[in-house]
Amino acid sequence: MSNSMYQGSALVFTHNLKNLSKLLKKAAADCKVRGYDPSVLLNTRLAPDMFPLVKQVQVATDNAKGCCARLTGVANPLFEDDETTFPELQERIKRVLAFIRSLKAAQFEGSDSRQVEMKTPIGNLTFNGADYLNGWALPNFYFHYGAAYNLLRHNGVQLGKLDFLGPVPGMTMSGKIAKMMSGKTTAKTKKKR
Amino acid sequence: MSNSMYQGSALVFTHNLKNLSKLLKKAAADCKVRGYDPSVLLNTRLAPDMFPLVKQVQVATDNAKGCCARLTGVANPLFEDDETTFPELQERIKRVLAFIRSLKAAQFEGSDSRQVEMKTPIGNLTFNGADYLNGWALPNFYFHYGAAYNLLRHNGVQLGKLDFLGPVPGMTMSGKIAKMMSGKTTAKTKKKR
Repeated sequence: MSNSMYQGSALVFTHNLKNLSKLLKKAAADCKVRGYDPSVLLNTRLAPDMFPLVKQVQVATDNAKGCCARLTGVANPLFEDDETTFPELQERIKRVLAFIRSLKAAQFEGSDSRQVEMKTPIGNLTFNGADYLNGWALPNFYFHYGAAYNLLRHNGVQLGKLDFLGPVPGMTMSGKIAKMMSGKTTAKTKKKR
Repeated sequence: MSNSMYQGSALVFTHNLKNLSKLLKKAAADCKVRGYDPSVLLNTRLAPDMFPLVKQVQVATDNAKGCCARLTGVANPLFEDDETTFPELQERIKRVLAFIRSLKAAQFEGSDSRQVEMKTPIGNLTFNGADYLNGWALPNFYFHYGAAYNLLRHNGVQLGKLDFLGPVPGMTMSGKIAKMMSGKTTAKTKKKR
């Protein structure tokens, strides 16, 4: 009945951060192909009171590193949040990936029942590790990762759900679907969005 | 190091389906307040080649029930996918919640290492239960749930991240943040999106 805390957090985040990195590479390429200033896309929002793309990426990466730091009790590396370009966002993702990869599976051991406290200037949030992962860290991460994806799709960047999911770890495929899912995004694979 | 498969799937889905239900109630109320036909919002898309709201909800609920069925080896209830109104979508969510709640925690036992096979007309996808949950079922669910949220936000429905997260199971709060997060969405709580 168990699912590893390490697998459900560190491995999930590293997988999805690599997917996010690829989405952003496609977005940067789109700026070149359609000939517009990347800063326009980086500062685009889906609604005036939502975060722009650059902030969605900053917060998604924050959620990933913060979760792994809190579950393992390792200090959460502080970032300046001063990225303004696609290469700088890629560098940020690389730094978060390096931090998560520096943690060992054993450091997550027992974290499902360990207390996690999130301190904020206006009070604290407390959970056990499993509740924190399932009810806070993962939905927060997917919230901002999904917002980045939807913002890009709304602005015409050519992406599909397979870009969001990436090559699913541990999945084997048979039949036509294998070719469809392991190849590049095509009109057919983009159906389900 | 373990996280319960039951908690990480059934409980996560029931929590988020209740959140989705509330988002849709706010969306239906918005149609009345702003005086437009609900079918316009239900058929709105964030991009011409993305699913409209009604389909995002159908697929998100499909992911939730399909995952719980596959992890427990119980037959996946087939739905007609013929909803066209907000009340019908609420009814669909209720049916999925009832199905998931009919499953016991013990039925998820050992599902992390059991083989899960997704059969499609063009081939099959195979994983163990943990890889399926972490790499397929959860990201797929959040993909469509997030798309519904972002579509509503883009169209001016008054929502914030706290609506998406809902009242986090097992979380205790202290200080000003407790009042902020347990109350209704305010301009302040809507900051982080």
